[in-house]
Amino acid sequence: MNSKIEIMAIGSELLTPHFQDTNSLYLTERMNDLGMEISYKTIVGDDWDELVLCIQQTISRANLIFAIGGLGPTRDDITREAFASVLQKKLIFHEELLRKIEERFKRRKLSMPPVNKKQSYIIEGSEVLENKNGTAPGLWFDTGEKKIILLPGPPHELKPMFEASVWPRLKSLKKGHSIRRVLKITGLTESKIENLISDLYPEDPHLRITTLAYPGQIEIHITGQSEDSRVQAEERVQKSEKNIIERLEENVFSTSGKELEEVVGELLELNRKTLATAESCTGGLLGHRITNVPGSSNYFMLSAVVYSNEAKIILLDVSRELLEKHGAVSPQIAQAMAEGVRRKSQSSYGLSITGIAGPTGGTSEKPVGLVYIALAWNEESEVSKNLFLGNRETIKFQSSQKALDMIRRHLLKSKKRKEV
Amino acid sequence: MNSKIEIMAIGSELLTPHFQDTNSLYLTERMNDLGMEISYKTIVGDDWDELVLCIQQTISRANLIFAIGGLGPTRDDITREAFASVLQKKLIFHEELLRKIEERFKRRKLSMPPVNKKQSYIIEGSEVLENKNGTAPGLWFDTGEKKIILLPGPPHELKPMFEASVWPRLKSLKKGHSIRRVLKITGLTESKIENLISDLYPEDPHLRITTLAYPGQIEIHITGQSEDSRVQAEERVQKSEKNIIERLEENVFSTSGKELEEVVGELLELNRKTLATAESCTGGLLGHRITNVPGSSNYFMLSAVVYSNEAKIILLDVSRELLEKHGAVSPQIAQAMAEGVRRKSQSSYGLSITGIAGPTGGTSEKPVGLVYIALAWNEESEVSKNLFLGNRETIKFQSSQKALDMIRRHLLKSKKRKEV
Repeated sequence: MNSKIEIMAIGSELLTPHFQDTNSLYLTERMNDLGMEISYKTIVGDDWDELVLCIQQTISRANLIFAIGGLGPTRDDITREAFASVLQKKLIFHEELLRKIEERFKRRKLSMPPVNKKQSYIIEGSEVLENKNGTAPGLWFDTGEKKIILLPGPPHELKPMFEASVWPRLKSLKKGHSIRRVLKITGLTESKIENLISDLYPEDPHLRITTLAYPGQIEIHITGQSEDSRVQAEERVQKSEKNIIERLEENVFSTSGKELEEVVGELLELNRKTLATAESCTGGLLGHRITNVPGSSNYFMLSAVVYSNEAKIILLDVSRELLEKHGAVSPQIAQAMAEGVRRKSQSSYGLSITGIAGPTGGTSEKPVGLVYIALAWNEESEVSKNLFLGNRETIKFQSSQKALDMIRRHLLKSKKRKEV
Repeated sequence: MNSKIEIMAIGSELLTPHFQDTNSLYLTERMNDLGMEISYKTIVGDDWDELVLCIQQTISRANLIFAIGGLGPTRDDITREAFASVLQKKLIFHEELLRKIEERFKRRKLSMPPVNKKQSYIIEGSEVLENKNGTAPGLWFDTGEKKIILLPGPPHELKPMFEASVWPRLKSLKKGHSIRRVLKITGLTESKIENLISDLYPEDPHLRITTLAYPGQIEIHITGQSEDSRVQAEERVQKSEKNIIERLEENVFSTSGKELEEVVGELLELNRKTLATAESCTGGLLGHRITNVPGSSNYFMLSAVVYSNEAKIILLDVSRELLEKHGAVSPQIAQAMAEGVRRKSQSSYGLSITGIAGPTGGTSEKPVGLVYIALAWNEESEVSKNLFLGNRETIKFQSSQKALDMIRRHLLKSKKRKEV
């Protein structure tokens, strides 16, 4: 089946500046997994005439249609009625469905409000898709030529329903096999990566490479397909992945979806090392990211967020003379902070950040975006000087990213040294 | 003019799971400011037949059309050509446009790649919308009956172009006047707010109230309109705002768009007070949020992120006996941390958080989500016990929100005490 697939998101709130349809991203990813692409997405409100016109045009264009939302009990929920009207089908009462909805309320010691009875009517000829997380049932309507799938709007209802009832029915449409892999990279700009790997972009229609750039992080998404076998799709991805990693080397920090803070956490645990951080301009973001990883208490001791000069002296014994001589944003202070927090916490590593996040506080000598980052271990240390572009938020993020990357590269090298 | 307005977002990347159109939210907000609503949004790729069909159907439905994206120099950029084809107009070469694009490259010491010449062709009868931030010019095409506006996809090109060239042309379509106000609230649940203000929801069609709920924060958006005057629209909003604030009182922390950390910063500056924080389960998030405010160095001294028990002892002189007796997650330790960081930093206030962010580490006595927050000042202190729901990320956020709210309410009260 050569499907034209469309997604309709239904609800007037999706036509305001406040709400955005995200369900379609999820459905797109799952259809891509079946080797199928989405042709159109439409967002329409709960005006009857506009919705009916939209359904007519969608059905005329596509043969696999997801319609999301508008299955609730209120008078604004008209998706069921509008599809029945366009398909020239009756809505028929479904006794068992009513019982299930009533039971749902009973379990919560409530009686069903009369409006909810509406949800037990289904389009003639359709099958019910059970909703285990809400009262709105989904519907599956197959004309032979076209498949129409009505799904509830709340993502925590839609996703389980899709996985349990829709995916098994759609799997037979699968055009071959599809495998996805995400490489996460830091320490290289998008254009440097472009230069390094552009000759690896596939001519092969079974392979797709997409590059996404964020401040401080680039992602390369590799999708491989095969009509014949999962193994073949996997081989295509693996070959491409291997070629890219050979070029980008240790700049690739993750191939498994893991974030940089998780990778650093794993390396620390593996090496049985502990970490303490000292932050000035990032204000706590570095510690926040490190502690977003469950179990980080195994290796993370503390972060001294020493925003003021006085704080650097009080918490980390940074010398007042050094501060006066070099200023807080200097390689000397970065180093003193890293060494200070390492000593104070008796950790294996001390990692520090001091810089100017802006928008004010910059000078021609020390501009906004100037950030020194230092790593201290044993009796040694290293300092990096950085000039980050962007606003306060992105400068803070890039600083934390670079700090995590410094300790990651250090741990990788010390691993190699051990292996030699 | 009773406009039917549609937004088309054009680009195959918008039909992948990775990219989402956000321009339409911005355009929606600005059209709402003119008292106009959006009827439809469509997302379509760069397949010629599908794009042409989409343009035909959009033009048949709407009389004001925004088409975003596909104006670049590559062969995938076909928006200009597709509209010309549907409108049965020629593309004509625009000498001055070419010169401007060439100059743009020259200023960056580059020569214009031949492909960019394509961008100097415009639809016959259209007006050029200057792009000060990129090479893709926008186009304004007015048939008398219908207005079609082609805009570039990158938001940093679209927004300035819209403000400079599109807004002034659309202002004449304005259906009266529109005023928006956002009330931000913390410390009340959505259902409590519902109970307190539901009788204030307007019957008046000139007034709209929308409630948005986030973990730890509720927003009430009030939009007032008037056919006659801006003053009347403003009065409608003010009256509604006043009524709501009378009910919700100091739970409303902002009516000006400011975030909670900004409001706290302003109160500290106003009172000439300083703050230091001590964080356990939030891992630095509280300091990160406080330092997201430019100028926070005026009142924020430091945050001691004391993740391990040892760190609490080393940095804050929390007593080992107290830790062993009550455990790190206890009102006694929260208080000791707040007092410790206040004393250590010699700040006016010490604010501390200690809790269990999960997903592991909870017990039946101390479950995941149990968080103690303490505020210390002079020789006094107060502690709050909280049980937050959600995952690690939302528990961390709600903890930081509650901590900021504790000091906000304290500063408000001390202000009142002074006034008495």
